[in-house]
Amino acid sequence: MSHNSFGHLFRITTFGESHGPAIGCVVDGCPPGIALKETDIQGFLDKRRPGQSRFTTQRREPDTVRILSGVFEDGDTDGQITTGTPICLMIENIDQRSKDYSDIKNTFRPGHADFTYMEKYGVRDYRGGGRSSARETASRVAAGAIARKVIGDMTVRGALVQVGPHGIDRENWDWDETDRNPFFCPDAKAAAEWEGYLDGVRKEGSSCGAVIEVVASGVPAGLGAPIYGKLDQDFASAMMSINAVKGVEVGAGFASAALSGEENADEIRMEGDSPKFLSNNAGGVLGGLSTGQDVVVRFAVKPTSSILTPRRTITGDGEETDIITKGRHDPCVGIRAVPVGEAMMAIVLADHLLRHRGQVG
Amino acid sequence: MSHNSFGHLFRITTFGESHGPAIGCVVDGCPPGIALKETDIQGFLDKRRPGQSRFTTQRREPDTVRILSGVFEDGDTDGQITTGTPICLMIENIDQRSKDYSDIKNTFRPGHADFTYMEKYGVRDYRGGGRSSARETASRVAAGAIARKVIGDMTVRGALVQVGPHGIDRENWDWDETDRNPFFCPDAKAAAEWEGYLDGVRKEGSSCGAVIEVVASGVPAGLGAPIYGKLDQDFASAMMSINAVKGVEVGAGFASAALSGEENADEIRMEGDSPKFLSNNAGGVLGGLSTGQDVVVRFAVKPTSSILTPRRTITGDGEETDIITKGRHDPCVGIRAVPVGEAMMAIVLADHLLRHRGQVG
Amino acid sequence: MSHNSFGHLFRITTFGESHGPAIGCVVDGCPPGIALKETDIQGFLDKRRPGQSRFTTQRREPDTVRILSGVFEDGDTDGQITTGTPICLMIENIDQRSKDYSDIKNTFRPGHADFTYMEKYGVRDYRGGGRSSARETASRVAAGAIARKVIGDMTVRGALVQVGPHGIDRENWDWDETDRNPFFCPDAKAAAEWEGYLDGVRKEGSSCGAVIEVVASGVPAGLGAPIYGKLDQDFASAMMSINAVKGVEVGAGFASAALSGEENADEIRMEGDSPKFLSNNAGGVLGGLSTGQDVVVRFAVKPTSSILTPRRTITGDGEETDIITKGRHDPCVGIRAVPVGEAMMAIVLADHLLRHRGQVG
Amino acid sequence: MSHNSFGHLFRITTFGESHGPAIGCVVDGCPPGIALKETDIQGFLDKRRPGQSRFTTQRREPDTVRILSGVFEDGDTDGQITTGTPICLMIENIDQRSKDYSDIKNTFRPGHADFTYMEKYGVRDYRGGGRSSARETASRVAAGAIARKVIGDMTVRGALVQVGPHGIDRENWDWDETDRNPFFCPDAKAAAEWEGYLDGVRKEGSSCGAVIEVVASGVPAGLGAPIYGKLDQDFASAMMSINAVKGVEVGAGFASAALSGEENADEIRMEGDSPKFLSNNAGGVLGGLSTGQDVVVRFAVKPTSSILTPRRTITGDGEETDIITKGRHDPCVGIRAVPVGEAMMAIVLADHLLRHRGQVG
Repeated sequence: MSHNSFGHLFRITTFGESHGPAIGCVVDGCPPGIALKETDIQGFLDKRRPGQSRFTTQRREPDTVRILSGVFEDGDTDGQITTGTPICLMIENIDQRSKDYSDIKNTFRPGHADFTYMEKYGVRDYRGGGRSSARETASRVAAGAIARKVIGDMTVRGALVQVGPHGIDRENWDWDETDRNPFFCPDAKAAAEWEGYLDGVRKEGSSCGAVIEVVASGVPAGLGAPIYGKLDQDFASAMMSINAVKGVEVGAGFASAALSGEENADEIRMEGDSPKFLSNNAGGVLGGLSTGQDVVVRFAVKPTSSILTPRRTITGDGEETDIITKGRHDPCVGIRAVPVGEAMMAIVLADHLLRHRGQVG
Repeated sequence: MSHNSFGHLFRITTFGESHGPAIGCVVDGCPPGIALKETDIQGFLDKRRPGQSRFTTQRREPDTVRILSGVFEDGDTDGQITTGTPICLMIENIDQRSKDYSDIKNTFRPGHADFTYMEKYGVRDYRGGGRSSARETASRVAAGAIARKVIGDMTVRGALVQVGPHGIDRENWDWDETDRNPFFCPDAKAAAEWEGYLDGVRKEGSSCGAVIEVVASGVPAGLGAPIYGKLDQDFASAMMSINAVKGVEVGAGFASAALSGEENADEIRMEGDSPKFLSNNAGGVLGGLSTGQDVVVRFAVKPTSSILTPRRTITGDGEETDIITKGRHDPCVGIRAVPVGEAMMAIVLADHLLRHRGQVG
Repeated sequence: MSHNSFGHLFRITTFGESHGPAIGCVVDGCPPGIALKETDIQGFLDKRRPGQSRFTTQRREPDTVRILSGVFEDGDTDGQITTGTPICLMIENIDQRSKDYSDIKNTFRPGHADFTYMEKYGVRDYRGGGRSSARETASRVAAGAIARKVIGDMTVRGALVQVGPHGIDRENWDWDETDRNPFFCPDAKAAAEWEGYLDGVRKEGSSCGAVIEVVASGVPAGLGAPIYGKLDQDFASAMMSINAVKGVEVGAGFASAALSGEENADEIRMEGDSPKFLSNNAGGVLGGLSTGQDVVVRFAVKPTSSILTPRRTITGDGEETDIITKGRHDPCVGIRAVPVGEAMMAIVLADHLLRHRGQVG
Repeated sequence: MSHNSFGHLFRITTFGESHGPAIGCVVDGCPPGIALKETDIQGFLDKRRPGQSRFTTQRREPDTVRILSGVFEDGDTDGQITTGTPICLMIENIDQRSKDYSDIKNTFRPGHADFTYMEKYGVRDYRGGGRSSARETASRVAAGAIARKVIGDMTVRGALVQVGPHGIDRENWDWDETDRNPFFCPDAKAAAEWEGYLDGVRKEGSSCGAVIEVVASGVPAGLGAPIYGKLDQDFASAMMSINAVKGVEVGAGFASAALSGEENADEIRMEGDSPKFLSNNAGGVLGGLSTGQDVVVRFAVKPTSSILTPRRTITGDGEETDIITKGRHDPCVGIRAVPVGEAMMAIVLADHLLRHRGQVG
């Protein structure tokens, strides 16, 4: 059952609300013997952490992770290693600003999950979005750091390829550039332009959407499982589970609908002793199984629904009203979705690596 | 574990290869007391059945479904009803043309799963695509017919909204039109134009992609589950599991990335005693839970990889060669994906209806 | 979800009712490349098949199994091998005697599931017990035959060690003897005595219970998973899922409660390069993980509830009445439970072998 | 996947080692709107807490539980209620005595999981048994307290019915008595005798086993699911997952093997408008579904393996040696297994209540 769990053999279960005492997750099924300490995880959390530039929420959370279980001293070194038992990661909430929540306690913010949580459960923790807050994604990033260790030599990298209506020029793609601007943008020129655009959005109290691309290299051929455990299916599931995501595509994605069969199917040649595809419209997945090429997944994030313009809405009592959503919000939540998308891809790959090993050896 | 199963409380497990003795599925968890006979299912299978127009494969399969278990005579009527035990549906393969498969036995067709299945399993049933054949989707459609009965008053309808590069004009949308042309196209004008386009594609031995839109009406608010059982996440998973699908989006989807927060968030007013959203960019899902609006999901299907133009590829022994894929193929596999997409949406809704009832009552 | 499925990586889903068209199962997750043909399975089904002696039901079912999917010709030999895709096994029901079911249509047989199925579902297929019939166990035996191939060199053997109040003398244990009497009894002397006892039970139209012991040898140390995937936990689950089973124990089992710590804990010495336990009260499992010793599981089967003595009961309308259960029943259903218990142990071991390989490599 | 999770719709995932920073669990799927505060859980933890009499381990753990998520203020009262999101319960380890573990660091204690964990994972947290410590059962008891709230009017009670070779006299059964002696014994006379017996065992540095009986009343008819989600199957799984348990039985259990069909099958009459069974050999379960009678489950716990008598064993390097297990151990771990068994039964019932509601409504 997958209410709050994801994956099968490498399985995460997350818990926690935005303004509760703590958030965290249990990672079950991790192989034993993997070196793991808090600092291995912290670096990835820092990348996702809010408040690092003026383009993300100004909430100040140190996001310090604590490993509560599942690791032990390594007999051979001074370090500690995973033991094969569940790894519980906890991140305490520190900066739950004690503000007045009367604005949203009984009013549904358009574009938020306020209305639907109330319809489903009849109760909701409205402070900071409660369980539906993007704060939950810190748990994913922490789990993703462990997943990266499981998949070993495979690398997973993400980049922001569109902000609002402004895409990158793929000719300028430089992975190193993603570390040099606050947008994880691989195109230095686009990044410079986005800065002005996003300043405008921010100053207007508005928001914008984004498209993220995540790429895995070094994925061996044959990961995945027909028919309902397809690798791309699990990527779609993983990415669509991230807050605010409205679309996912693999390889040529939606553009493939307009291609002819001749253009689309990736031809194959040999390069030395190995097969080499001459293009990658498949995005590294055929029939739900990895081809050995780069796995390429993109997902679209809608604009943050928390904006300063008054919006028409209703209260829990069915009264019509208007609402302005103040507070500390990301003008473009898609920026911080980059490390989250990377984490989810690593988690899917780790799960399928173990699943493949289980069935095929 | 989800190798060949989908869903939790309403769960399907499919089996079978394109040219084996039979395909089918086991539907587990269906509520008892639902009237169900073969003819309830057959109508949907007929809609998906190949060979119904010159635009789909000419393989002639009656696709006659047989219910092997899970139903019994109704004490109150002459009919038969579900008993709450697993329903096994079997469809025998009839028209497995005994052709010479030497072409593909040891050669990987570009764009097909030949290479990846071989990499994973070291063996594959290459006849007609084996397990990776779109023939498996007949099982989904059969299961979907049962799912429709479970979701009762909710309706699920699908339409083809783009063929190759040619989209519809949404101003012309007429659901009734989808029954009047061989494309399930809701725009009569577009359908007429597609006919000529597809004749051209077919005569060239080429193929094209498509975009399908599936809409559910009457979905109560509150279905779905945070965080990893989101309704849209399961739609993404369901649609991406269909053969040849490369992208999925909900509501405004990828276009939402270019919207501002003001444009995107659907405002809410009252209509009588009920909330009414003034737009539906969310596609009926907020925070992973249904809003009560129409659920709108689109997915992109790549062009069929079986084309008559010679393509470069390799053999299982690593020799470079060229291949032409003859046989009985759909020039646009996206057409028959319409009833399949409908079935998958019905299955997701049935599962979540039962899951919601389980947790919330 | 486990309504009608068992296992995780090696997972079976069974379907079918006693008097429906067919029963069967889907085996998902089987490794590829394993030689498998119908005759490999048939031998085990024959062992469980009814009507083989006067001590089992006289229903005449050939129990001919048909493999519908998941196998394909082996490239290297003339045989066929598993492909890694789901294997559907179907057994048609032949001898559904078209009798008058008016006796039990609306009357609940004591000790049977008639009452509880009706309470749960409001409908039941009462013919021959429907889904709750021991006929379902044929599917388990068929799946178990595949599981045996997955676990390779491990052997799984079962024996009847008690019939009614009559146990065996363990000093006489001879595995070969289990093939020489109709009870799978490892003690020739006991078997001879049981014959007279069971003839008496049968002639009185009465029934008796039994205890079955299943032993696996060659199980490598380390299979199983703490804390809720313990090997012995899954044996308990597997055996308790068999019809009429009321108790399961591992190793010394219930008797261990009366032992002292000194008596119970199995001491360890070395034998050459390998650890050797000096006793096996643990039954081959410590902390939920296999020790490398023989795995020993016992389970108790209650007496068949179908007897000729009139019993007090009620009808579906709440009227008090008496009932005699005629028909073709096993006087001791525990006999045919031996191959079923073997099958379930093989299935658990196959699942854990793959799970172990998945996590630990 | 069930490495460290149990249940489906009401699902627990536990984490933590005996001497790590904390243990705990995530309870997922709990219905919303249930009043829940720490003190509701604490009472049950106190019942299981060590160090409460001289007959249990002298480790001093306050076992203070903290709710980290899944509850929020109730709009209608001053209290707090469940929100339907995952409930994380954390119990910090306080009294991890900083002792010298050199004795067991590299030596396998007979009867313990030391050897098997090492064989499986190649590493183990040997401090206090690590993950295999009975300390994990505190998480079960905490989750069980929530499960009790889910099952509402159903009551779950446990009792110790045998200590070493000494059983109770069922004629003396008095549930109230279980609160008046340190053994949860329902027979005052037996309890008095056990005191002397256990003092002897304790002073010898030996240990003994026990049998626990858990009874649920008020269970509605129809809970459970054929064929692999049987209620008794899940009880068997639940109880066998508890540390040191070697056998589980339902109703007449193993004794039913010696009964005749006439003796065993519980006859049915009407009592007013309701069915009334004239006996309960079934233990409240027929065909895997509850009958509405009391559910009765017994399980056997082996003697604690930690004893002061030297035992033969080996080291991790394959050297033969002797070992004495000192430390703070329960002479009869079966005593504290009573609240654990109650918790597991409540968890199974909660899960099946939600599952039943999901499928049948």
